[in-house]
Amino acid sequence: MYNLKHRLTRRLVTIAIATWLINSNLSSHHAFADEGMIPISELANGNLSERGIELTATQLFNPDQISLVDGVCRVNGCTGSFVSEQGLIITNHHCAYGAIQKASSTENDYLLNGFKAQTLVDEIPAPDYTVRVTEDYFDVSADVLASVTQGMTFLQRTKAIEKRGKELEATAEKEHPGLRAEVAEMFTGKTYVLFLYTYLKDIRLAFAPPQSVGNFGGEVDNWMWPRHTGDFSFMRAYTAPDGSSATYAANNVPYRPKRMIRIAPQGVQENDTVFLLGYPGKTARHKTASFLSFEQNVRLPAIVELYNWQIDLMTDAGKEDRAIEIKHASRIRGLANVEKRSRGQLKGLRKAGIIRTRTDQESQLQSFIESDSDRRAKYGSLLQEIDATYREIAAAAEFEINLDQLRSASRAFAFGFTLYDAAVERQKEDLDREPDYMDRNWVQTVQQLKTSLADYHAATDAKMLAGMLQRLRKIDASKSNVALAPLIEVPVKIDAVANDLIERTHLGKPSFIDACLDKTPDTLAKIDDPLLQLVVKLYPSYTAMREANKAREGRLSQLYGSLMEIKQQFLATSFVPDANGTLRLTSGTIRRYSPEDAIIKTPITTLGGVIDKTTGTEPFITPDAVIEKYRAGEFGPFRNEQIGDVPVAILYDTDTTGGNSGSPVFNARGELVGVNFDRCFEATINDFAWNKDYSRSIGVDIRYVLWITGIVYGADHLLKEMGVTPAQ
Amino acid sequence: MYNLKHRLTRRLVTIAIATWLINSNLSSHHAFADEGMIPISELANGNLSERGIELTATQLFNPDQISLVDGVCRVNGCTGSFVSEQGLIITNHHCAYGAIQKASSTENDYLLNGFKAQTLVDEIPAPDYTVRVTEDYFDVSADVLASVTQGMTFLQRTKAIEKRGKELEATAEKEHPGLRAEVAEMFTGKTYVLFLYTYLKDIRLAFAPPQSVGNFGGEVDNWMWPRHTGDFSFMRAYTAPDGSSATYAANNVPYRPKRMIRIAPQGVQENDTVFLLGYPGKTARHKTASFLSFEQNVRLPAIVELYNWQIDLMTDAGKEDRAIEIKHASRIRGLANVEKRSRGQLKGLRKAGIIRTRTDQESQLQSFIESDSDRRAKYGSLLQEIDATYREIAAAAEFEINLDQLRSASRAFAFGFTLYDAAVERQKEDLDREPDYMDRNWVQTVQQLKTSLADYHAATDAKMLAGMLQRLRKIDASKSNVALAPLIEVPVKIDAVANDLIERTHLGKPSFIDACLDKTPDTLAKIDDPLLQLVVKLYPSYTAMREANKAREGRLSQLYGSLMEIKQQFLATSFVPDANGTLRLTSGTIRRYSPEDAIIKTPITTLGGVIDKTTGTEPFITPDAVIEKYRAGEFGPFRNEQIGDVPVAILYDTDTTGGNSGSPVFNARGELVGVNFDRCFEATINDFAWNKDYSRSIGVDIRYVLWITGIVYGADHLLKEMGVTPAQ
Repeated sequence: MYNLKHRLTRRLVTIAIATWLINSNLSSHHAFADEGMIPISELANGNLSERGIELTATQLFNPDQISLVDGVCRVNGCTGSFVSEQGLIITNHHCAYGAIQKASSTENDYLLNGFKAQTLVDEIPAPDYTVRVTEDYFDVSADVLASVTQGMTFLQRTKAIEKRGKELEATAEKEHPGLRAEVAEMFTGKTYVLFLYTYLKDIRLAFAPPQSVGNFGGEVDNWMWPRHTGDFSFMRAYTAPDGSSATYAANNVPYRPKRMIRIAPQGVQENDTVFLLGYPGKTARHKTASFLSFEQNVRLPAIVELYNWQIDLMTDAGKEDRAIEIKHASRIRGLANVEKRSRGQLKGLRKAGIIRTRTDQESQLQSFIESDSDRRAKYGSLLQEIDATYREIAAAAEFEINLDQLRSASRAFAFGFTLYDAAVERQKEDLDREPDYMDRNWVQTVQQLKTSLADYHAATDAKMLAGMLQRLRKIDASKSNVALAPLIEVPVKIDAVANDLIERTHLGKPSFIDACLDKTPDTLAKIDDPLLQLVVKLYPSYTAMREANKAREGRLSQLYGSLMEIKQQFLATSFVPDANGTLRLTSGTIRRYSPEDAIIKTPITTLGGVIDKTTGTEPFITPDAVIEKYRAGEFGPFRNEQIGDVPVAILYDTDTTGGNSGSPVFNARGELVGVNFDRCFEATINDFAWNKDYSRSIGVDIRYVLWITGIVYGADHLLKEMGVTPAQ
Repeated sequence: MYNLKHRLTRRLVTIAIATWLINSNLSSHHAFADEGMIPISELANGNLSERGIELTATQLFNPDQISLVDGVCRVNGCTGSFVSEQGLIITNHHCAYGAIQKASSTENDYLLNGFKAQTLVDEIPAPDYTVRVTEDYFDVSADVLASVTQGMTFLQRTKAIEKRGKELEATAEKEHPGLRAEVAEMFTGKTYVLFLYTYLKDIRLAFAPPQSVGNFGGEVDNWMWPRHTGDFSFMRAYTAPDGSSATYAANNVPYRPKRMIRIAPQGVQENDTVFLLGYPGKTARHKTASFLSFEQNVRLPAIVELYNWQIDLMTDAGKEDRAIEIKHASRIRGLANVEKRSRGQLKGLRKAGIIRTRTDQESQLQSFIESDSDRRAKYGSLLQEIDATYREIAAAAEFEINLDQLRSASRAFAFGFTLYDAAVERQKEDLDREPDYMDRNWVQTVQQLKTSLADYHAATDAKMLAGMLQRLRKIDASKSNVALAPLIEVPVKIDAVANDLIERTHLGKPSFIDACLDKTPDTLAKIDDPLLQLVVKLYPSYTAMREANKAREGRLSQLYGSLMEIKQQFLATSFVPDANGTLRLTSGTIRRYSPEDAIIKTPITTLGGVIDKTTGTEPFITPDAVIEKYRAGEFGPFRNEQIGDVPVAILYDTDTTGGNSGSPVFNARGELVGVNFDRCFEATINDFAWNKDYSRSIGVDIRYVLWITGIVYGADHLLKEMGVTPAQ
């Protein structure tokens, strides 16, 4: 079906989100960076040559021929690039982390020592990894929105859109065997696109530097510039001998990408044009000032408080026992990453006047609406209604955020919730279930549950549970909650309650979890486990929250749809949609910036800087091999004459967000000069607004990648495979 | 007597330390900054024009006529400048802090609100302040060293030099009534100079900004660049109506300085030449690698640990009670200042390879010594003997540092020590006493004791005492100590002992201290006060330590004297002596620097930066008056067109150290463009080594001084008095 209207629907997407660049300032050649992650369908309108990009739109993306984007893929939640014809992928060390960790043992600690496969057979399978390659896309907006009928409640509206999406995916997958279909919302409530992907399932680890290189600077340097992290690894995708997607098998063969990305071993210098391709996750550039106020005043401060508490609690627990420290390490890292980003966003929101600017824009829009009676009738109360929705969300937020965190802070509680939720959902028809419990996702959901279970630590969990119950206890809404009220009415000691629950529950035991995975809700509700009982009693609160969120989402979806309409009329132009995990291009230059008065940060760091930062204690350890090559002056062709050193990391003013991890950084000719892995602290605010003065992204310099891989660790065969002449 | 050989002796100084600049690199005009605080006697050899200074040596300093240095004075431990013919002095806010604090009350909180005297009669006396003006100087090296005879022990040597110095001072003061004489050691064990000073004793406060301006950034920004602190205040010196030095009297008149320093309201820009005059306290550039190792491995780590412990203890105590917080504030500030500097020095010593460089230099020197049999005979074991002395100091250090800290951490113990030490010393002839107890210093010593007594807090003192006894208890040397052994042999609880001592002692009571000030040692030893008894029992340990230190000092003095001799032969040049609190000139340029890879710090901060840093909570509060004038754009002539803002602080690569606080920063023509108040963190290492790459000092920009004083706080009369046209 989709093959037939292929051309037509593709053009529809283009019309829907095309002209957004019309008003852009095209005057300054090298300074052409701007807000906007351009969807691949919009490259023809992207003024590429004004951006300094020497490739044409069709060289970048051409659905009928092979183009640059065919060399770019998604590696789990990250982006990767095919850098050889043998399926070799470069991505971030932090993206390959799970694979390296899983491959490691006490005898072969690849996190500590790094990993190098000398030949293909030495490569280690990474069973939890999939690589996604974009094959095609279609505009399905009309089809999706046709499922919405007059008189539907907001909840019904959301459910209808979700279900129609799932149906379209199922149909498309039937028509394109071997491909996976996914519907993405481009503009909230307005535009929906169905993407077709190849999912490669046999992914293996080919090379990783020690984490003292790949995560040099650790949490201290995270979200920071200057940066000295060699955050890269090489993986390889395999297929069945016939080229079809297959899970691991010994006789599988390297995947042959349609296009390989060429390396530019000479790298870049300051003010050079660069562009990125990648899968940015989520931005909120089209959200209203009331949304930003909610983030600034309610959600972000709550997250910062809750996460700091959990990080401190787990850090303290780890001080007593190295085994516990290891168990909590990746959870702490995850929380710390979001906590620091949230703190940066809070700082940015408070400082940068973003809310004031957006409020001003909305006042102007409101005046425009009210200057015409038809417009007033249709859109007059639009902004007010959006505000009202966020006020409703804010009013419920304290209870809902804490209820939500209860299910995440206490792992045993989380396991119980997943068991019971799965039992309830999996009784429904597949298409009616929450996505995690649909057959296509169920294996992954169970896998995640088991991974998390392996890091369970009862004493920490008791403290987490106590802390969350303590917080919930202080909230008015808890008084009328059947599960929480007993904890409030009687002056019980929460610590004792939590300790008792964790002591008596079996939810931390793999055998118990295994046994519960196939049970019905009724059976689960009868099991004599006190924490599972609490989960069951609180479950209606969670489903109520879920329904309330869908209803708000439905309402906002409709309201934002209208907002886009009237904004387009007002500004007489179109916009680029918020990031949604689909493939985008963003361009800019290698550029310094001034984050504060009297400080300039220049855009290329050096190996000398790595040595300077090295203290010999975490997170600033540098492997002896690196120090030896540095001292011996063995830089091969990767030392830059101008800066007199091997470049390590690069800084550029492109527009990125989470999901751009591993994105290839290209020079003007589309050759690889770096691998994106982070943003600077000031650019955490990118999610809400991009600004040329402080929005900067960070990548590892290809010269450091090649020096570490080839010269320090001797993987010359990989350099050759990528077409790079190894050291002289 | 000195008047007669005035010419001769002055020339002697010149010969002794003259040719040190011979080997300097004179090629680059604007880049001419170097290690070296040039003594005023050496300006003729200072290559002033190569330094970009447009004044001649005699315009800067001329003992027979009025010159620029006559406009510079010492204000207690700081430097100041006379900026009007009416004795108006500009110095740092932190230098005037004691005067502002003393003048403040709950009703008139000048620390909080700032202070402005509208007329002379409104100026508030600062009885604890003296201003010192250099009048003349003489080389007394031969005379001083004549007191040393063959066969003296090192202790006898030190005492002989000290006593001869005191005699020369007494004689000179008799010959120059009204002046104060002070002998300063220029090169350790080699060169001694007698300075004659006028001491002005009626000093008054004329203007101070609120401390939220004068100490903006507080401890967080201390030792840091970029800086946004308006660290300046105006004081005024008064004399008797006949012009002679006198203590406060209502009919005193403003002091008429021989020379006033002219203001340059147009300020400076990046790469402009600047020079400073001031009284740098102490540097250790001529000390050996073994001294630096002692600092790095023993003394600095001990200080950092001890001070951090005391700061934390007092900070915690202050959390409970605002009154206690205030009591501890200035003591915390003092400790924190030294702690951060020590930390910076440790970091610098570890990183900068200073010890390695110095060791290399010493190896070369040793080879030079051994290449000639005469040299070998005379100097062969020199470096070895110096090393041995530092090893001896290091071996005793743990006990001595902790014994010394006991006398400072516990104030009650310190008061008891001063009482008993004074009683012992004041029984001796005046010239034989420790300087603090000589008649000329006794009033000040008592004053300091009373100031410290006002901030006494028993609960904190008990914890300090317990902590120090705990530390001493763990040291081997304590076992054989008659006072400490009882605390070690029996397993007593130190906390209980300390609490009991503090509870029962009267040493925190002003009346008790007053009553004890005139008592003999025997009488004090009989008083039934348990802490005073402990002091008396430990006193022999303190005198033993004092004698040991004098003996080591005597030995080092002689050894360093020889080291200077042979170094001079080896390098075929002379050197500038280490700083010793005497007047020096240092020059350089307004200059950016790169403290680490990919970071550049530019050398002029702005008012916009103050506003950016302002959070509304300590230490980043900005007065409403400042914010209002900023918002209103009322910058008068003090906004710089080029940077589009009012400059706030400036950075320059001159060579400064502690004691340079308040030093005038001059432009090439000798006009005032700033007031020095700090160094950047990397430059804490200045005390051990100066480096053009990271040695940077910090001053408040004269444009900020004038904007705050004139435009924000309306003290136009002061601007007029300084010859500056106030705002248009």
